[in-house]
Amino acid sequence: MSKLLIKNIELLHTPNGEMYCIAVEDNKITYVGKDVPEAYADAEVIDGKGKLATAGMVNTHGHVSMTLLRSYADDMELMDWLQNKIWPIEDKMNANDIYWGAMLGIVEMLKGGTTCFADMYAFMEDVARACAETGIRANLCRGLIGVAPDKDVKLAENNVLAENWQGYDDGRIRITYGPHAPYTCPVDYLEKVIAAAADHKAEIQMHLCETKFEVESYQKEHGVTPIAMMDKLGMFDLGTIAAHCVHLTDADMDIMAAKKVRVAHNPQSNLKLASGIAPVAKMLEKGIVVGIGTDGASSNNNLDMLEECRAASMLHKATTYNPLVVPAGKAWEMATVDGAKVLGFENLGLLEAGQLADIVLWDMHKPYWYPRHNKLSQLVYAANCTDADTVIVAGKKVVEAGRLLTFDEEKIYAEAEKCTANLLKR
Amino acid sequence: MSKLLIKNIELLHTPNGEMYCIAVEDNKITYVGKDVPEAYADAEVIDGKGKLATAGMVNTHGHVSMTLLRSYADDMELMDWLQNKIWPIEDKMNANDIYWGAMLGIVEMLKGGTTCFADMYAFMEDVARACAETGIRANLCRGLIGVAPDKDVKLAENNVLAENWQGYDDGRIRITYGPHAPYTCPVDYLEKVIAAAADHKAEIQMHLCETKFEVESYQKEHGVTPIAMMDKLGMFDLGTIAAHCVHLTDADMDIMAAKKVRVAHNPQSNLKLASGIAPVAKMLEKGIVVGIGTDGASSNNNLDMLEECRAASMLHKATTYNPLVVPAGKAWEMATVDGAKVLGFENLGLLEAGQLADIVLWDMHKPYWYPRHNKLSQLVYAANCTDADTVIVAGKKVVEAGRLLTFDEEKIYAEAEKCTANLLKR
Repeated sequence: MSKLLIKNIELLHTPNGEMYCIAVEDNKITYVGKDVPEAYADAEVIDGKGKLATAGMVNTHGHVSMTLLRSYADDMELMDWLQNKIWPIEDKMNANDIYWGAMLGIVEMLKGGTTCFADMYAFMEDVARACAETGIRANLCRGLIGVAPDKDVKLAENNVLAENWQGYDDGRIRITYGPHAPYTCPVDYLEKVIAAAADHKAEIQMHLCETKFEVESYQKEHGVTPIAMMDKLGMFDLGTIAAHCVHLTDADMDIMAAKKVRVAHNPQSNLKLASGIAPVAKMLEKGIVVGIGTDGASSNNNLDMLEECRAASMLHKATTYNPLVVPAGKAWEMATVDGAKVLGFENLGLLEAGQLADIVLWDMHKPYWYPRHNKLSQLVYAANCTDADTVIVAGKKVVEAGRLLTFDEEKIYAEAEKCTANLLKR
Repeated sequence: MSKLLIKNIELLHTPNGEMYCIAVEDNKITYVGKDVPEAYADAEVIDGKGKLATAGMVNTHGHVSMTLLRSYADDMELMDWLQNKIWPIEDKMNANDIYWGAMLGIVEMLKGGTTCFADMYAFMEDVARACAETGIRANLCRGLIGVAPDKDVKLAENNVLAENWQGYDDGRIRITYGPHAPYTCPVDYLEKVIAAAADHKAEIQMHLCETKFEVESYQKEHGVTPIAMMDKLGMFDLGTIAAHCVHLTDADMDIMAAKKVRVAHNPQSNLKLASGIAPVAKMLEKGIVVGIGTDGASSNNNLDMLEECRAASMLHKATTYNPLVVPAGKAWEMATVDGAKVLGFENLGLLEAGQLADIVLWDMHKPYWYPRHNKLSQLVYAANCTDADTVIVAGKKVVEAGRLLTFDEEKIYAEAEKCTANLLKR
């Protein structure tokens, strides 16, 4: 049994300078309060002086290995970008590229206070291995393109992924099924995916209603919205993580609320790719659970969840002309506990006894942390992902003084550069 | 004569790993190229290995002393926020608060790669003193509220400010006149301000067309838009920095283009206060010079120009549904050389011989800087203000290894906290 004790730490909603104590046993938080619990005399102690403890952030959508393509192609028309830049280079990526791309993205996320992420890509065994080695929490699926010749091979890979990794390390890794999008997955293929997911008692991750064009074409072809079709196919009964949801009708949102579809909102990716701005205020009003995601590094171009949380908080105030929409507290919930719900993790995202011990200690000794009228506002509206000093996942310290403990950071950067150089030569 | 030589440094548009040299004499860049210039044998040398040099960023709009009110009041209706929170506490601020608030904002900006800023507030002699001491470049004006009983005292203060500080330290400090906004400055007062500015050969800084409500009310009362009125009053003939410009007609933009009105675009402040999204793509099309600003820390809540540059680049892609709008290169120009034009500084904002030596060296040894397909995209879309390692203003090193050299940082944080505590008790 491993024990960890964080002493002299400040919390989001407590007065400035007042010190608290957090106790962790194995992968769970057992105590948060003013006293130092007696049973922890033999625990490893972390001195939290000058720091603020929060739950770790949850990145609800992305393609982590795309960090290798960070800034490879920007400021382009979507189809030009995909067809002439992204898809051709993705086709050349091998398992080694995927592994080191994942490592690079994971070190960026962990060092930035993100302790859990969702991923949809290829060679997912290698992504799972990167998660196992670095200690990050993840919800992984094999990206399934139903119009590709090897569509059945991909589905078989998703089955194997589920069989190998579902529930790994006391539930640190979850496996879902990843039909890419309605426009890349014909109905008969979706039926197969849904059946396979049901067989494996797994949920679904899918891009849904990202662009106006895709929704309009789908309606023209099928006579219903993508949301209505997925509902009709029974997908939502399995539990679904819907990424993007930028272009929705009121009826779509009613279906999503009724069927408990959880949304991964990717504000900056939607801005950068000119997809639009998702109706987040309306989704929240309807009681839909919305988390936040960075999407892949080729459409963002970083995996900075704090920046994304800020964007999610600010953006919808302007589009609704209402400064009360998505206040700092709601944005922070979306980045943490709501994100955990989106990814299907239970007892995750709050800093309280009984929750999984995914914890970030933020260093407040930075100019933008002064003065401290309101630590929650400070974190959401002013702080920086590089303020994450100590990061704990499932009770295990993975980052200390801003350095990754579980793997050699320098090796990750060197290997990622080597993979990229080789990839460009292929 | 002081000489500085930056060796082994990378530039934005040069191949990865290729090393360049930058020479500085007094406050100017004298050379940028591959050779090491001979005349610099006795110069102070900075080793730029692993770093990227760019021009410093220019923050074109703000109220720097409002850092004392950072996160004091958020997520509120504009008038509730101003009338019940911001204005009452601002009324209690004294010269000492303003000075330490300015110091706190300046240390944040300098450490984040911002080397020049605009300011409109009260007790501006104390802000000018903070600029003189820290070494930052600035364009300062006294905020002038024409509906206040002491409106003439304020105008007299702006006159004294111009007389004392215009052109200080070889032009490092510029003084402008700061009529707050059309709705707080009646026409007869504006006429007086314009006459005083003309007398002092100074330009104007003004909030213009920030909210829909203010523009609509102005039109109802005066029969013309605020832009048309300011034009009629001859303000634009003096040279004008127009902050916000969220709600403009096509005719307004034509006037602004013709009269060379320069715009300070504050994307995040406009989002957070629910003011809306400025028509930046259209302004750029019409040839209007647009810079970027953070606005004060109570509506942002940091003074991070890199974050602001990213927001300016991403936002307008989504509202125009055009991913080619405000590409990374244009956003970076807006944050640097265009911002310098907005604030009326000549030979500023480019990293080339003959320009003023305001230079930032960015540490690229961070996960989100790998791999490096395109350093410009990397900087605008992925990097972090905390990557600013060395900062030079007017040829003088002001930040080294991320620490302020010109003033005791710890004293600034302590005094800012003391001022804030006293302010809350008053």
